[in-house]
Amino acid sequence: MSFDVTILGCSSATPTVDRHPSAQVLNVRDTLMLLDCGEATQNQLLHYRISHHRIRYIFISHLHGDHFLGLHGLLATINFQGRQEELTLFGPPDLEAMIMDYFKFSGTYLKFPLKFVATQDQEQAKILETNYFEVFSIPLRHRIPTTGFLIREKEGLRHINAARCEELNIPFAHYKDLKEGKDYKDEDGKVHLNEELTFAPDQIRSYAYVSDTRFSPDLKEILQGVNLLYHESTFLHELVERAEETFHTTALEAGQMAQMCGASKLLLGHFSARYRDLTPLLEEAKSAFENVHLAIEGVRFTVD
Amino acid sequence: MSFDVTILGCSSATPTVDRHPSAQVLNVRDTLMLLDCGEATQNQLLHYRISHHRIRYIFISHLHGDHFLGLHGLLATINFQGRQEELTLFGPPDLEAMIMDYFKFSGTYLKFPLKFVATQDQEQAKILETNYFEVFSIPLRHRIPTTGFLIREKEGLRHINAARCEELNIPFAHYKDLKEGKDYKDEDGKVHLNEELTFAPDQIRSYAYVSDTRFSPDLKEILQGVNLLYHESTFLHELVERAEETFHTTALEAGQMAQMCGASKLLLGHFSARYRDLTPLLEEAKSAFENVHLAIEGVRFTVD
Repeated sequence: MSFDVTILGCSSATPTVDRHPSAQVLNVRDTLMLLDCGEATQNQLLHYRISHHRIRYIFISHLHGDHFLGLHGLLATINFQGRQEELTLFGPPDLEAMIMDYFKFSGTYLKFPLKFVATQDQEQAKILETNYFEVFSIPLRHRIPTTGFLIREKEGLRHINAARCEELNIPFAHYKDLKEGKDYKDEDGKVHLNEELTFAPDQIRSYAYVSDTRFSPDLKEILQGVNLLYHESTFLHELVERAEETFHTTALEAGQMAQMCGASKLLLGHFSARYRDLTPLLEEAKSAFENVHLAIEGVRFTVD
Repeated sequence: MSFDVTILGCSSATPTVDRHPSAQVLNVRDTLMLLDCGEATQNQLLHYRISHHRIRYIFISHLHGDHFLGLHGLLATINFQGRQEELTLFGPPDLEAMIMDYFKFSGTYLKFPLKFVATQDQEQAKILETNYFEVFSIPLRHRIPTTGFLIREKEGLRHINAARCEELNIPFAHYKDLKEGKDYKDEDGKVHLNEELTFAPDQIRSYAYVSDTRFSPDLKEILQGVNLLYHESTFLHELVERAEETFHTTALEAGQMAQMCGASKLLLGHFSARYRDLTPLLEEAKSAFENVHLAIEGVRFTVD
């Protein structure tokens, strides 16, 4: 079942000719979510042929322009094109007023239900729960209130051991209970333990979006065991003082973070416009953690 | 001396894969002005290698997103890259509050002087005068307060008839007076008329930016004799009812406007996303006015 992320933007504040500001589309079991929405995200969606009609949730990490300035235009286009389904927007409290002001001044009347959920940047919080996954906000350390997001599948049902169940002639009507982990008592009153009749559920997969932040070793508990970790890596470590001043992270530190939290794979992004060639950032992160990739625009990364 | 316009965006509200929302760079004698600033204008400036450092004035016609949503990001980038020179922004009164809110919420501290001049959409008004040109706002008829802009050179100095002046041994010191139209009295007290000693100044050139509007024949006086007329032409005339409802203009009507006001050349833009091929819009406008061009992105049109 799908769990992947497509990169729409990987630049930091200043875009370059071939890099757009932050935006990613996460697909969890065919539910599409937008993580940040930098300027021109709607163009990037068009470019990579991802229909905005399919987006159900939008998460904004913070109110620096390169993370949310595409939102006004995207919402206007979504509205203009006749959406009727609800869309839920998560972001810092001030985001709502800014969007509403824009609708007011531009004479835009929303024709679809837009629900706003304010995030807070003080502690980890569950902000969304669906049948299949949960989303948690992650408190980050940046110049203005900022949260990352952790998206984690919920534990699924156990899988029926068909051969064993058929051997015991267990009626189909009991399969639902078995999937939920219950034991089975047969007609003679004999109890068959669930673990003899089923296999373990699918492994839980998770994705963490660590948007702008100063390197924060404290995050290792929240991020423990994450399958795919996206971590900003604005600078090379030779500019660590600049990273400290501007509350960003270096590629080396992003690698260390992945190592510390036991991630399976690391994605680097939010690259400073000063780096034309991104290879040195990749190599630097690899010195601390092996499985690293650059968040190149248009590329889809599977979470597994 | 330069007087040209480079198109950065020509789509209407909904962008397409190859068309961006409204933005144009006008160059009048090396003074650069931005006319509207749709989303991703800063990317388009990068793409067409026009330095934002050179932009001195920005004019926003109205507060529909496709005409101004690139402004926040562009100003942030300009600020981030250390501009010190003043930049003057003209636009509807509510624009200032929106931009200021964005600076506040994003923790942006402007390091260059940004001057804001509010436009009004009730009557033509001179909103800028420099040594070489004047800019007038043009009241338009749209769903929200909207102005177009007319940029017109000021009358220049007369040109010295060098052969005649040398023949009469007129000292160089008098040339300034001659250029300003004064007659010349020689040592014998004989008066030589200015028109015998100089040629007429360069012809005054003008550009009109008629952004979103319902077809307005009343504009013909303001636009009288304009050299290059940009006029929105969102629809083909078969959709004139839709144009009326949404306060837009058809390609045929744009051609009629150019004809009525005696423009030298017409530029069509603000194309609905429904038109993949723009030729029918061009042909339709040509049925009313001969010298028509499509405002294709990246193309520079000379005003003469």
